[in-house]
Amino acid sequence: MEPKVENIYNFSAGPAALPKPVMKQAQADFIDWNGLGTSVMEISHRSKEFIKVADEAEQDLRDLLNIPDNYKVLFCHGGARAQFAAVPMNLLGQSKKATYIDAGYWAESAVNEAEKYCEVDAFDAKTTIDGKAAVIPASEWKVAADSAYVHFCPNETIDGIEINELPQTDKPIVADLSSTILSRQIDVSKYGVIYAGAQKNIGPAGICIVIVRDDLLELASEALPSVLSYKVLAEKDSMFNTPPTYAWYLSGLVFKWLKEQGGVEAIEHINREKAELLYNYIDESDFYKNDVHTNNRSRMNVPFQLAKPELDAQFLELADKAGLKSLKGHRAVGGMRASIYNAMSLEGVQALVDFMKAFEKDNA
Amino acid sequence: MEPKVENIYNFSAGPAALPKPVMKQAQADFIDWNGLGTSVMEISHRSKEFIKVADEAEQDLRDLLNIPDNYKVLFCHGGARAQFAAVPMNLLGQSKKATYIDAGYWAESAVNEAEKYCEVDAFDAKTTIDGKAAVIPASEWKVAADSAYVHFCPNETIDGIEINELPQTDKPIVADLSSTILSRQIDVSKYGVIYAGAQKNIGPAGICIVIVRDDLLELASEALPSVLSYKVLAEKDSMFNTPPTYAWYLSGLVFKWLKEQGGVEAIEHINREKAELLYNYIDESDFYKNDVHTNNRSRMNVPFQLAKPELDAQFLELADKAGLKSLKGHRAVGGMRASIYNAMSLEGVQALVDFMKAFEKDNA
Repeated sequence: MEPKVENIYNFSAGPAALPKPVMKQAQADFIDWNGLGTSVMEISHRSKEFIKVADEAEQDLRDLLNIPDNYKVLFCHGGARAQFAAVPMNLLGQSKKATYIDAGYWAESAVNEAEKYCEVDAFDAKTTIDGKAAVIPASEWKVAADSAYVHFCPNETIDGIEINELPQTDKPIVADLSSTILSRQIDVSKYGVIYAGAQKNIGPAGICIVIVRDDLLELASEALPSVLSYKVLAEKDSMFNTPPTYAWYLSGLVFKWLKEQGGVEAIEHINREKAELLYNYIDESDFYKNDVHTNNRSRMNVPFQLAKPELDAQFLELADKAGLKSLKGHRAVGGMRASIYNAMSLEGVQALVDFMKAFEKDNA
Repeated sequence: MEPKVENIYNFSAGPAALPKPVMKQAQADFIDWNGLGTSVMEISHRSKEFIKVADEAEQDLRDLLNIPDNYKVLFCHGGARAQFAAVPMNLLGQSKKATYIDAGYWAESAVNEAEKYCEVDAFDAKTTIDGKAAVIPASEWKVAADSAYVHFCPNETIDGIEINELPQTDKPIVADLSSTILSRQIDVSKYGVIYAGAQKNIGPAGICIVIVRDDLLELASEALPSVLSYKVLAEKDSMFNTPPTYAWYLSGLVFKWLKEQGGVEAIEHINREKAELLYNYIDESDFYKNDVHTNNRSRMNVPFQLAKPELDAQFLELADKAGLKSLKGHRAVGGMRASIYNAMSLEGVQALVDFMKAFEKDNA
């Protein structure tokens, strides 16, 4: 028997589950939004109705993250991958070098793109502690004196590795927060640029948030495509071209939902509970394991393996039938992965743990 | 009394109205798509379910436009404006020059972006015939011998100007078909690159279709951001990064709807009827006028002015109350504009003409 929609929990790493109340409201308003007789996706981005959506989304995000006034908030096309090119093109200025802290797949992907535009001073921060994957402490990271900025990705979704420190540097810090934004409190004033693809903690794929300190807007390369220019987007309120309006609208609904939950402080508390519930069970069990050291375990993406990997396919099949969706690990590491972003409830993680216990009992 | 949703006709220039049956289906499937218990926007772009959506959308578009096998179809982030940069970065190769045919605002915007990357050989094709706006015949367009390609925009949405010819050249023809794609039959084999922002005849804002002849994939600049590279996107089936999956899905529904209408040949017939109905009434009336010569009137965007422009605000207010939405002309030209893309029915245009007649009667 198929589980009811209410009892389906989607652990997709991204595009990820959105909050169910947001999806219900969007469905109700889909064809006749705001009494206009059309969808919000069928009106001009320059209409007063959409400008209100856009402005409220920005203000709600500013409220949620306490974004200082000297930071611009941009709603961009293209996902975080586009920012891998946009960051060096916007920030190098006269410099020819940038430092990239490498703790996994996404940091390395950013390096590969940045190498088109500058010399990359890469610092390999990957290590092991007691045989578990970990990250070298930030106090030991080396930053070249002539780097324009320091880039890092504090959450590696594939390996389930999280960095809970900032680079210790006087250079602008640039962070790919795709998986962590809005999941925990941050001090925006410590960063030069924060960027985040929406499809984990914000909204649907196809929009990317950039938060940039305004003194960094003047450094852009002349060859920069206008759609990637922070300066152009800041001057045009992210409407240099037609923005992805529906994704912007849904992101705004997610921000309002998050405010109703009590904001980032409240969701961080729940996120910590969710992660502890899952990791504690994994650590207690001899049937499941997680290979990341406790120093660097991600609260958002929890990879785990079975002691009997020959049972992986059966685990995934039964989980899916029980309404626990998209638990397959990334092809690069195998096993299982539970992505437990803001939209995943504590009940969802409890349902996963209950399933894992029952599967262990039947197969240990 | 507010008109019913079924009787609301949305003449927005873009983001534009989508076919009502598509919107109804998308609403019904919004939370529980394909029996998965989640939305299509909440699943991995690499899942077998989404790959099927993506493949079908491409095949349906190939069927609709008879796209030859030696053309790649790309579903890109960023809208047509991103292509203003992507085109020169992808196509210049060793050349330092490209020809741009200029018939209005969008062509000029493409020139401004291209000038970052090459010398632009611009040909001003704007003219007047009998005091009406028109375009110089293609046989008179001049193309520099050392241009890498010839770019043109056959439909200028703001001025309502359409070009019904192709450049006469042996160089690759690059066309911004944002407003005309799928509205009339075209011979794709005559083009090097066709691109089109979705938000007129395809789907919601935030996705852009690129159709590129495969021999042109090898010319890309080294400094090209990967997300804009035709070669990278072709090799990765438009999934180099997470694509805008929901916009892709909706575009696919629009393609299926268009096939059900009888395809491009059938919709072209309806589009011709719609445009004739509106232009014929405007020409018969002394109360309304359109300033474009019949040679170059757009079938998609019909600007018109009142003989008494002091009544503009009243016209727009009453039209809106009658369910005829978004008729205000672009701020650069004023007056009114009716965008009548594929999703606008003949009934919608008839409702507009009926309203215009009544307004004329009351105010002439």
